[in-house]
This record gives sequence, C-alpha cells and structure tokens, in this order.
Amino acid sequence: ARSYSITLLPGDGIGPEVVAVAKDVLSVAGSKEGVELRFQEMLMGGAALDAAGVPLPDETLAAARASDAILLGAIGGYKWDNNEKHLKPETGLLNIRAGLGVFANLRPATVLPQLVDASTLKKEVAEGVDIMVVRELTGGIYFGKPRGFGTNDKGEETGFNTEIYSVAEIDRIARVAFEVARKRGGKLCSVDKANVLEASMLWRKRVTAIASEFPDVELSHMYVDNAAMQLVRNPKQFDTIVTNNIFGDILSDEASMITGSIGMLPSASVGESGPGLFEPIHGSAPDIAGQDKANPLATILSAAMLLKYGLGVESAAKRIEAAVTETLDNGFRTGDIHSPGTTLVGCKRMGEEVLKAL
Amino acid sequence: ARSYSITLLPGDGIGPEVVAVAKDVLSVAGSKEGVELRFQEMLMGGAALDAAGVPLPDETLAAARASDAILLGAIGGYKWDNNEKHLKPETGLLNIRAGLGVFANLRPATVLPQLVDASTLKKEVAEGVDIMVVRELTGGIYFGKPRGFGTNDKGEETGFNTEIYSVAEIDRIARVAFEVARKRGGKLCSVDKANVLEASMLWRKRVTAIASEFPDVELSHMYVDNAAMQLVRNPKQFDTIVTNNIFGDILSDEASMITGSIGMLPSASVGESGPGLFEPIHGSAPDIAGQDKANPLATILSAAMLLKYGLGVESAAKRIEAAVTETLDNGFRTGDIHSPGTTLVGCKRMGEEVLKAL
Ligand SMILES: CC(C)[C@H](C(=O)O)[C@@H](O)C(=O)O
Ligand SMILES: CC(C)[C@H](C(=O)O)[C@@H](O)C(=O)O
Repeated sequence: ARSYSITLLPGDGIGPEVVAVAKDVLSVAGSKEGVELRFQEMLMGGAALDAAGVPLPDETLAAARASDAILLGAIGGYKWDNNEKHLKPETGLLNIRAGLGVFANLRPATVLPQLVDASTLKKEVAEGVDIMVVRELTGGIYFGKPRGFGTNDKGEETGFNTEIYSVAEIDRIARVAFEVARKRGGKLCSVDKANVLEASMLWRKRVTAIASEFPDVELSHMYVDNAAMQLVRNPKQFDTIVTNNIFGDILSDEASMITGSIGMLPSASVGESGPGLFEPIHGSAPDIAGQDKANPLATILSAAMLLKYGLGVESAAKRIEAAVTETLDNGFRTGDIHSPGTTLVGCKRMGEEVLKAL
Repeated sequence: ARSYSITLLPGDGIGPEVVAVAKDVLSVAGSKEGVELRFQEMLMGGAALDAAGVPLPDETLAAARASDAILLGAIGGYKWDNNEKHLKPETGLLNIRAGLGVFANLRPATVLPQLVDASTLKKEVAEGVDIMVVRELTGGIYFGKPRGFGTNDKGEETGFNTEIYSVAEIDRIARVAFEVARKRGGKLCSVDKANVLEASMLWRKRVTAIASEFPDVELSHMYVDNAAMQLVRNPKQFDTIVTNNIFGDILSDEASMITGSIGMLPSASVGESGPGLFEPIHGSAPDIAGQDKANPLATILSAAMLLKYGLGVESAAKRIEAAVTETLDNGFRTGDIHSPGTTLVGCKRMGEEVLKAL
C-alpha cells in the first residue's frame, strides 16, 4: 500500500478544532483508496510563539519539508497582534511558504447550489460562480528587498517595501496558471497594474509570452482596479485568474466573499517539487475558538486538495468532495452557513456527518 | 460678484461630451449664487498626445495651476494602450496629480434610493450605503523610487517599484480623512497591510497618533484583504475609509461598483493649497464615445464637488445635487442606469433636464 506522511499544523484559534476533524476525514478517505497516511503534529503561529518563542520553529519547517504534504489550520489572534514583525504569527506563515518554496497558491471561489443564498449578491449574479484564483505566493512586495524604515532627504522617517518580480518568477506562476486554466474552462485572466507599475509591465509581457505555449487557453488582461469591480459586477465572466502576491491576497478574498461562505473555501500552495501546503482561507476566528462552533468544511476540502494536488490521489479527493456535498444535501449546517429549514450542528458533529457520508 | 477661473480638461472618449454638459450646469449653478465662472479648455491625455506629442503639455499644467479649479472628463483609449510609459495618457493623469500636489482623493460611493436596483448586491445589503473613500494620491508605489527594470543576482531581468510613505505624507492625508469623517458619520476606518508591510506599519502608527487630534472621531484599522471582503459582505459598516494610493485605487473602485452605478460617481482631488482636480470616476468608454450615450451625471456631480471643495460655494453645489435628484425622480435615465418604467435619454438631454431642474 502507498504510504505518505502528513504534517499537521493546527495553529491558533479554531485551527486545532478544524484540523482534528479534517485529519479523521483524510485518514478514512485515504484508507478507502488503499493509501496509508501517517500524521505528525507540529507547532506554528501563536501556539509556537507561546511554546517556543518563535512563530515557525526550525523543527516545524524541517518536519514539514521531510513530509509529503502539510495541512494547516489557521494562525493569529489578538494576543500577538502588537508583536514586532519577526514575532508575529503571520511571519511564521510567510516563512513556511518561502521555506517550502510553494510559489503557486490556488484559491477556488465556488458558489455551491446549496449555499447560493449565503451570498450578499443577487441570486442570478452569484449562482454558478466558479473561479480559481492563482496567486503568486513567494515573491512580490511580500518578500521584496530593500524593505524597512529609513529617513528621506527631508529628514523624515519613512516605511518602505519593494514590489519586484523576475522573469523566472513570472514564467513559472504563469505556467501553473495556464495548466490550471486548461483543465478548467480554458480561460485565463491575468490581473496587473501595467498602466502604472514597471513590475506589472514585465508581468504582462511575460504572461503574454508564455501564452504561446498554451494555444488552447484564451488569455486576457485586466487592471486590478477593474478586476475588483468586475468581481462584483459579473463574477461569472471569470474562469481562472492569475495575479501577483498582493493583488492575489486582495482579489482572492473578495472573490471568496462573493460566494458568501468563506467557511467553505480551501486553498492549496504548491511549488516546483517538494510538499505542498494546504489550508482553509478563513482565519483563526478567536471569538469562537474552543466552542465547537467552527465550520470544518473548508479544512476538509483543503484535505481533498491535499489528496489531489499534494499526493496525486484524486479518487480519494473526489470521495471527500462527494461526502461534503452529501452532508450539505442532508441539510447539516454550522452557524456561519445556517439558514431556516436546515439542521444547525457544531464542528465535531459536522465532521461525523462527513465521515458517515464517506 | 465673485469670479473664478476653471480649467476644463475634456480628454478622450466620452470625456468631451460629459464635460460640455457639466460646464453648462456649472455656469448656471454658479450664476444663481452670484458667482461668475470663466472657462479655459486645455489638452490632456490621448488628445494631447495626438495634438502635441505628450500626455500633459506644459501649457496645460501651467494653466491648471493658475486657475481656481480643474474639471477633467476622462482619459485613455485602445489607441494609446501600447504606448511606452512616458507616452501613455495615464502618465498625463499621474503627472497632473503630482504637479498640482493634490494628495487627497475623495471618492464617495453612495447608493441613491432611486438606483438601488442597479446594484448587483441584494437590496437589503446595498440600500443606504454611503461610503467616502479618502485615497492618498501623490505617494506610495505610484511614485516611489527606485522603480524600473533591472537584473537580479541570477542575471534574470526584473521589474520593480517602491512602496514608500513618509511620516509627513501619512499625517497630512490622515488629517484630511479625520476632517472628512468628522463632517460625516464620525467613523474612520484606516486600511493597510500592517501584518506584512513596513510601509503599512508606519501608516498605522501615524494614523493612530493623529487620532489624538480628533477625539470625536472613532478610528478603526482593517487589513486590505479583509476590507475587500467586508465591502461585499456588509458595506454599510463603513462611513469613511482612508488608505494608500494603490489600495485606494482598488477599494474605491470596488466600493463604487457596489453602488451599481459608476456612471453616477464623482471624485475630488485636493491638496494643501492651490486648485483641486475634479473628475468622474468612470473611464473614457471609447466604445460609446461620440454617440451621445454617456451618463453625464458623474461629471455634473464632480462639478458640484468642485463648487463645494474647490471654490467653497457650497450653496451652488447643493443646487446641483438637488437638481440631479429631481432629474432622477422625474424618471430620466441614460442607458447605463436605465430600467423598465423610466425614460431613456442621451447625454445632452440628461444635461438639459438637469438644467431645467436647476
Ligand atoms: C495572514 C497574512 C500574512 C496572509 C497573507 O497576506 O498572505 C493571509 O491574508 C492570506 O491570504 O493567507
Ligand atoms: C488611470 C489610472 C492611472 C488611475 C489610477 O490608477 O490612479 C485610475 O485607475 C484612477 O483610479 O483614477
């Protein structure tokens, strides 16, 4: 039997609750396909700060690197919000992304028929939305140097960062995005600010060049301000979107909210080789942590992405997705997606229902 | 009688049509308040490129500087899209903003009761939305240096830009935003990415410091990705938003689309002293240029902002706003906001109706 090792990073807030549930689902789905999964839990984020004084201990990164895939819950919380930069939970997240080299972040925003009413958009606008945002994750202004604080020629204090992309960085994320688009609706929209930024001009030039390798994919370009509008005006016009780290951060969150159910949305971060990082897009929700109220479906669907994109066991991923659909069809809902006529359940119970459906 | 000089920059596409209509409205509203307005039309954008080879001729900037306020239509079009950076219409716009020192860009996003159905958001979510985005306009990544193209240590070509803010730049935009919030609902939300970017950390620190000068305004902070979500989830939670140049570009466009009628939305760009720049937020819409189909109301409402923020003649601004409301109440609509049961009119006719209502 195939056997894989999975690093679990429960993190903070509701992270441990949703990861515990997703772990069981992952195990069962794997075993149904003859795949054995071994789990190792490691510290990250605020939990690591409290226990070890750093947001990403060396052992955690080493264990993650040595494993076949990583499932992350969520990180952060009020407690650490005012920490200095190198002691922020978020820095742990940025460091593990960079440390694993997972430059391609895939963020689906899909409106499920069962949850179309959860969107704040009119039904006819939201229904059928199925977007994949491919966000560059290890470059751009998040990591660009120089960065820091300085003094300008008037003697005033400044804060600064560098948005920078190289041809190699753009080419590799463009190829991932074209591959993704090819397997989806065959349409790729590249989002930039090439009317103002040199980094975006190079981005547009390279994405256009790479397009010749994918003649079957229809490429278009859009400015980021227009993309932010078009997602609200008519989200169905989009199939696959590719964009840089900071625009991807903003647009993928906007797209996810258009579905109305961010408690449902998974993400995958993958590199050239080596293990991928899989996590729900929602945060650590400290307000409801430890109350068995969290929606575990985003993490469960992240586990499905782990099986598909991380281990290549697509059949097991399909089982999970089908089980989630069945559970929703059976009317089970956590608080965030609850509506009249459905059955309100907690985090654990939702997990049990998915296991039953599996 | 008070007398002021106004520079008109019709620009490209539908710009000349909407500016012509707004000019008449401005004249009449001014004269009703005993204010004489003198107009001078100058070249900018693609029109200036075609006629003079540069997107912002020196005479245009000089005339604008010497006048009391500037009304701009729209710039840009397919024809100039592939021009080099210094020959893009957009570069003319950036240069006039910088040349006039108009660092504070005020962008209202208001859902008018008559047009609530135009929003793609559900009625209960859209109705009553009244947001003012205060965007920093002459700093940040739009103007930061170094910028350009280079080679990294692997010998690969790069494109790069610098996001940079000084204390003085942040303090002055923060003060404008607090003043605006004070005259509105008394709530200011500062949007940044302080969990990642040093430029945002300084931003948050200074906005927090300036808050002590405005004890009557309630300040909150939000990360830009979350703000992009919250605008979709519950836009009514926002009163006044203050943010940097690039985040303001994205979020103000997102907010404007939430109203569903970007053909209605004006903007004002003002500095410490000197003339302000007033323009609709919509683009040059080359597809419908010259067909008398454009909605002139955004430019007419920009003219109202010009009277209020540019010349301090608030009574005349109120007259224009009331006339626009009356015209909408009378059922007149251009194509972009037309719905069954209303009267479809063109750009000129819409202007005539506003003049009648004046
Ligand atoms: C927590 C934060 C650093 C992170 C990011 O900006 O990438 C988050 O918003 C995300 O999108 O995963
Ligand atoms: C045309 C472009 C340079 C401009 C900007 O990005 O500022 C526009 O999008 C705007 O918001 O006024």
